[in-house]
Amino acid sequence: MSRQSGMKPAARLYVEGALAPAAGVALDDGQAHYLRTVLRLEPGRQVLLFNGRDGEWLADIAELRRSGGVATARSQRRAQTPEPDLWLLFAPVKGDRVDWVAEKATELGVARLQPVMTRHTVVTRVNTDRLRSRAIEAAEQCERLTVPEVREPRPLPALLEEWPQQRRLFVCAEAGPARPIAEGLAGLPRAAPTGVLVGPEGGFSRDELDLLRELAFVTPVGLGPRLLRADTAAIAALALWQALAGDGDRRPPERFEN
Amino acid sequence: MSRQSGMKPAARLYVEGALAPAAGVALDDGQAHYLRTVLRLEPGRQVLLFNGRDGEWLADIAELRRSGGVATARSQRRAQTPEPDLWLLFAPVKGDRVDWVAEKATELGVARLQPVMTRHTVVTRVNTDRLRSRAIEAAEQCERLTVPEVREPRPLPALLEEWPQQRRLFVCAEAGPARPIAEGLAGLPRAAPTGVLVGPEGGFSRDELDLLRELAFVTPVGLGPRLLRADTAAIAALALWQALAGDGDRRPPERFEN
Repeated sequence: MSRQSGMKPAARLYVEGALAPAAGVALDDGQAHYLRTVLRLEPGRQVLLFNGRDGEWLADIAELRRSGGVATARSQRRAQTPEPDLWLLFAPVKGDRVDWVAEKATELGVARLQPVMTRHTVVTRVNTDRLRSRAIEAAEQCERLTVPEVREPRPLPALLEEWPQQRRLFVCAEAGPARPIAEGLAGLPRAAPTGVLVGPEGGFSRDELDLLRELAFVTPVGLGPRLLRADTAAIAALALWQALAGDGDRRPPERFEN
Repeated sequence: MSRQSGMKPAARLYVEGALAPAAGVALDDGQAHYLRTVLRLEPGRQVLLFNGRDGEWLADIAELRRSGGVATARSQRRAQTPEPDLWLLFAPVKGDRVDWVAEKATELGVARLQPVMTRHTVVTRVNTDRLRSRAIEAAEQCERLTVPEVREPRPLPALLEEWPQQRRLFVCAEAGPARPIAEGLAGLPRAAPTGVLVGPEGGFSRDELDLLRELAFVTPVGLGPRLLRADTAAIAALALWQALAGDGDRRPPERFEN
């Protein structure tokens, strides 16, 4: 990665538009506000852009208006690479814990965030727009080249019914028989399509656990002797998958300076 | 674990006093308020108590006053077991992220929380009392039999100087050479005394990384290609240690009901 100019790019932003040499790329209102008012940047300054398809690009800010703006893509800095095919299914938890899950799961490289309604789920409404914003922010900050897909909430039985049989589903089970997660992950081929399912604060119901244990694609796993909160369990399981079966042997891109 | 009465203990509390048959145990103001005003309990109801030394005990609430109260220990429900000897050294991060770290690290079984001041640490004051409260809360909720020790902040060089040489220190290094964390942990004897060191949001300085890499007890480890926030890195590294070198093969205590 060569340094194109003496000045470090001032921001890293997720955009919708195509990235190609000299392409004009629309910045939305929030991005224009952030660049103009928070970072106090002028047209001409460099930013990094990614859209989940075309890799990461250096771009010049061309125009910043009160509503929106435009950047001009200059040169590709990183090629697009596929992300690990990892889904997180989580029973929504209260307050800002669910936003925290979206942030951390994005940093830990999930491809899909799927809220799931279970028997003991007490949170009935999930603001998926807010989860999506939080996921975009986290992707911008953690050097990802993609943003995870945030799906609308679905009941657990429906998700299980349409589950792709070749995708293993690790269910974090605090009660009943379960393999230690490290053991469960050890047998998984590197980067195999995977799902991780974490229940609500009250845990899964006995019925749900019985149903899950009958499914050929399910591996119930344990995370040790302490009862983890749902958000902690999700983060722990994702970190373990990446380290043992994902891209944990790769390194972050070299940074411009330290 | 036999069920002593038809009623599930109404709370699980950390206490200072000794736990023995018929011992009167002081409850502090906050605990008395919680039992009396939040849970609306009366004397006679059962609670669970632990003090980090005598295991977990069933106890009857004997007295609840405006300031403090007393419970009477009845019978031991779980014997004291040693916790994994795991320390987390973390550069304090802003706002409530540092409280999160205390909560999650407690759930993930750390024995000691050590705030550490590094070159790029921007947070200068750490409210260790608040961290301690959060750690106690998390220990009560996650079925631990101990509360992690929360130490006062220390500069990195001082901590390294007095470091016990036989305790391996895994340093989460986002820049420069590092082993994938799963590989670094694979060679560790089960439950060996360990430290995990996580830098501040700006990362370690080049000097600090050079110094750390020269120390025989240090293993620099990587957590994959995404730049994790400091709090995410801490949680990921602790979860990995427990699963690969700690007590990840144990299960939570059986619960009273589901």
